Amino acid sequence: MTLRRRIYLTLEPTEKGGILERIFELLLIIIIILNIVAIVCESIKDFHQEYAHFFHKFEVFSVIFFTIEYVCRVYSIVENKRFEHPVAGRLKFMGTPMAVIDLMAFVPFYLTFLPVDLRFLRIFRLMGLFRMFKVARYMHALSMFKKVLYDRREQLVLSLIFILFILVIISTTMYYVEREAQPDKFTSIPATMWWGITTLTTVGYGDMVPITTLGRFLGGLFAITGVGLLALPAGILSSGFFEMMHRPRSRKCPHCGEQVWGD
Amino acid sequence: MTLRRRIYLTLEPTEKGGILERIFELLLIIIIILNIVAIVCESIKDFHQEYAHFFHKFEVFSVIFFTIEYVCRVYSIVENKRFEHPVAGRLKFMGTPMAVIDLMAFVPFYLTFLPVDLRFLRIFRLMGLFRMFKVARYMHALSMFKKVLYDRREQLVLSLIFILFILVIISTTMYYVEREAQPDKFTSIPATMWWGITTLTTVGYGDMVPITTLGRFLGGLFAITGVGLLALPAGILSSGFFEMMHRPRSRKCPHCGEQVWGD
Amino acid sequence: MTLRRRIYLTLEPTEKGGILERIFELLLIIIIILNIVAIVCESIKDFHQEYAHFFHKFEVFSVIFFTIEYVCRVYSIVENKRFEHPVAGRLKFMGTPMAVIDLMAFVPFYLTFLPVDLRFLRIFRLMGLFRMFKVARYMHALSMFKKVLYDRREQLVLSLIFILFILVIISTTMYYVEREAQPDKFTSIPATMWWGITTLTTVGYGDMVPITTLGRFLGGLFAITGVGLLALPAGILSSGFFEMMHRPRSRKCPHCGEQVWGD
Amino acid sequence: MTLRRRIYLTLEPTEKGGILERIFELLLIIIIILNIVAIVCESIKDFHQEYAHFFHKFEVFSVIFFTIEYVCRVYSIVENKRFEHPVAGRLKFMGTPMAVIDLMAFVPFYLTFLPVDLRFLRIFRLMGLFRMFKVARYMHALSMFKKVLYDRREQLVLSLIFILFILVIISTTMYYVEREAQPDKFTSIPATMWWGITTLTTVGYGDMVPITTLGRFLGGLFAITGVGLLALPAGILSSGFFEMMHRPRSRKCPHCGEQVWGD
Repeated sequence: MTLRRRIYLTLEPTEKGGILERIFELLLIIIIILNIVAIVCESIKDFHQEYAHFFHKFEVFSVIFFTIEYVCRVYSIVENKRFEHPVAGRLKFMGTPMAVIDLMAFVPFYLTFLPVDLRFLRIFRLMGLFRMFKVARYMHALSMFKKVLYDRREQLVLSLIFILFILVIISTTMYYVEREAQPDKFTSIPATMWWGITTLTTVGYGDMVPITTLGRFLGGLFAITGVGLLALPAGILSSGFFEMMHRPRSRKCPHCGEQVWGD
Repeated sequence: MTLRRRIYLTLEPTEKGGILERIFELLLIIIIILNIVAIVCESIKDFHQEYAHFFHKFEVFSVIFFTIEYVCRVYSIVENKRFEHPVAGRLKFMGTPMAVIDLMAFVPFYLTFLPVDLRFLRIFRLMGLFRMFKVARYMHALSMFKKVLYDRREQLVLSLIFILFILVIISTTMYYVEREAQPDKFTSIPATMWWGITTLTTVGYGDMVPITTLGRFLGGLFAITGVGLLALPAGILSSGFFEMMHRPRSRKCPHCGEQVWGD
Repeated sequence: MTLRRRIYLTLEPTEKGGILERIFELLLIIIIILNIVAIVCESIKDFHQEYAHFFHKFEVFSVIFFTIEYVCRVYSIVENKRFEHPVAGRLKFMGTPMAVIDLMAFVPFYLTFLPVDLRFLRIFRLMGLFRMFKVARYMHALSMFKKVLYDRREQLVLSLIFILFILVIISTTMYYVEREAQPDKFTSIPATMWWGITTLTTVGYGDMVPITTLGRFLGGLFAITGVGLLALPAGILSSGFFEMMHRPRSRKCPHCGEQVWGD
Repeated sequence: MTLRRRIYLTLEPTEKGGILERIFELLLIIIIILNIVAIVCESIKDFHQEYAHFFHKFEVFSVIFFTIEYVCRVYSIVENKRFEHPVAGRLKFMGTPMAVIDLMAFVPFYLTFLPVDLRFLRIFRLMGLFRMFKVARYMHALSMFKKVLYDRREQLVLSLIFILFILVIISTTMYYVEREAQPDKFTSIPATMWWGITTLTTVGYGDMVPITTLGRFLGGLFAITGVGLLALPAGILSSGFFEMMHRPRSRKCPHCGEQVWGD
């Protein structure tokens, strides 16, 4: 076995991956999780000041690690039938979502060395979040959710459009009803949409609340509507889960020629 | 083919509509969506002041477009078997919900030229919202929702009556319990209903909250009741969706004469 | 037909009730609804002051009407096989829930003439709410809800006990965690339960909110727990509705001797 | 029958337990519930001051009762086949969750006599909560919930990981978006997670709310996402309940050799 094949098999383990593959997979997951923990903890002022040095070291280590990982992936990917061609295959691989996520995990760090405006640096910092998505590669189990979302995509998109449609209507109405009583809060229709979303989703922060009698009457109607609207996607997802778990395989009964439900 | 038939087929395309029909449909949808965007954006002060001229031009264009569209629809509708009669048919068509919506999309604009009180003008402005409903014509896919709502209409109406009944009871009780502690908030039973709705729907803005011990005890009971009440319409809608997606067509088994579930 | 039988049939119409029965039923429902409307409207100060005279007149009329109705019911009930005995049967009838509700609809009014403490008068006033429950007699359609609640009563009671158990645990914990940071809000465990209920039901008024780090961490865990807990009764009710609507009648297949689902 | 066997049968009654066993079971449940009530009531200042003496007496009584119960359980457990060995069997029993809970119900009380820091005493006090869990032994009926949770454990854990993942992403994003506008509220990513949880669970206390336009736009998206996310565990639990209640037993049809649904 060539070294390239060895690397390929380690990075993209098949079902029956050996011990080496498993160890590397675990190592990568741990480093990703530590990166997420680092991003979260670094935002705490006291932590940041005290452990700034340590955080920086871990950052550098992670970036080097992810860079090497990415280079190895691009180098060895030609072992895969789908990306066989030395140049075209590798470019094709680099365009896959997972490869882009892998690239975004370390590129922003290098960009901070460019002589650009400091304000951009902050955005690069935020892009460290992309490291989180690297973990998606290992969440095989999420495939169930993805499948339900995919199966029901049409109805879900329709629900969202429908919810958006209702949102525009109730926000426009509420804007015209409340803007005179609370001109500082219901400043425009998009601003009123914030009220609309918090009401339709039943979050109800309470920072924007109708105070006129008509506004409260309509607000009450909209809140009840919201509960019904939320039942749409919830019902769609529930029935999707149910169907997937209990998918009855219908077969032709060899005796009576009818479809029968069963295993 | 006469011009009238040509117009009719363009405005009311059948399943196998040609390119012209598709282009017109798309154009109409785009203009409607742009109208919705305009209504929303115009409410933002900065936008309104800067682009007032542009908004007005687009308004005039839309009204002319919708007027012509409406006139064409009424002119050509006699091609439809259901509205064959030149006068009675056209009047019958003008009474259909979609035609009324189409009319309301532009009539308010013309009414602003009437020498009426300025306060009414604002209401006409709000009626621009009717343009939004024009899009309903193209949301064929919403038929699934409509069907579930229609199938379950009895149970949904019952749930609403039941929720209203509970709402009156808890609001009346809470009013008598809290009105002495918070006479400025729990001013009357209808005012307390605002609290009742935000609690039953679990929105919970927090602008009206019981503060007495008895009020909080009852409020807690009502909140739990609310969760159960919300489960009623949600359960009804969920089971409605489920049924529609998995509607098992029962057939008579030719062998044993029994009903069997299957395709 | 005796007058007593005539009255009995008018008050307790069977399926094939005649026109007189239907008119009386409708009249009673209208008077009940008007009473509910009166209770609600009377609480609005301006309404109350302006129409005090009218409200009082309607009150007197309603009480007389309900009194006559009640007397007629008790007088004629012996026509019913279940309450045949002139004395024992009538007393038995007066003990049924619907008869008690009918009695409570007018008795409080008469009690206001007793020379009792004025504070009690207010409670009698509140008892006017019992008139609302008179409408329950005519909500035949609510029987579906009652049936689901009855079918699932064991699981629902268990859910409530379980939710109460969790509520005590999270409120006790949160009380000890937050009482030092907010001694004026988290004053005792029962007071903290108000926070617990608004969190578990996701109402979230925001009048009591943990502010310590530990309190917020635990509060977050409890909020997620609450969502899961709410799914218990919601899931139970949903499956109850579903079962009732799609109750598959299993029959023995005369051919193969197996149970087959179908109509 | 030896005394040890007598004690064993009283403490661990089988299905057909006699009157003595039932009385003891009831007595224990009542003492546990009284303990829970005592913990809750003691936290009310007025109650505590007035009945301090009584609460202390009940505390001492409960601890003695629970101590004797525990000693009896450990003494008699060797009658059980699983814990036969006089020493190893008893130690094994003492390691079971229920035995640990029983121990924790009274040990903290004795520890308060140790000459330790007073601050620890408070923690021991809180451990009185463990007495609540003693009731778990008698909630046989909760087994249905446990079963659904167990059946769906994989999907529920996955949902929680998924929700946690989304929570980290939205909190990190919102932190960077809002920290400049509200540096006193959105102080760090973990602090922003409090906002994230209250939004995803639709609790929405309103103590932390985005105020920037971008923050509100993202907040609205996250709120809608949250509703979808909540539908995941809710749908899983609902389908779990449904499956358990309607578990169709598929059998082989002796006639046609196919699986048929039925009883």
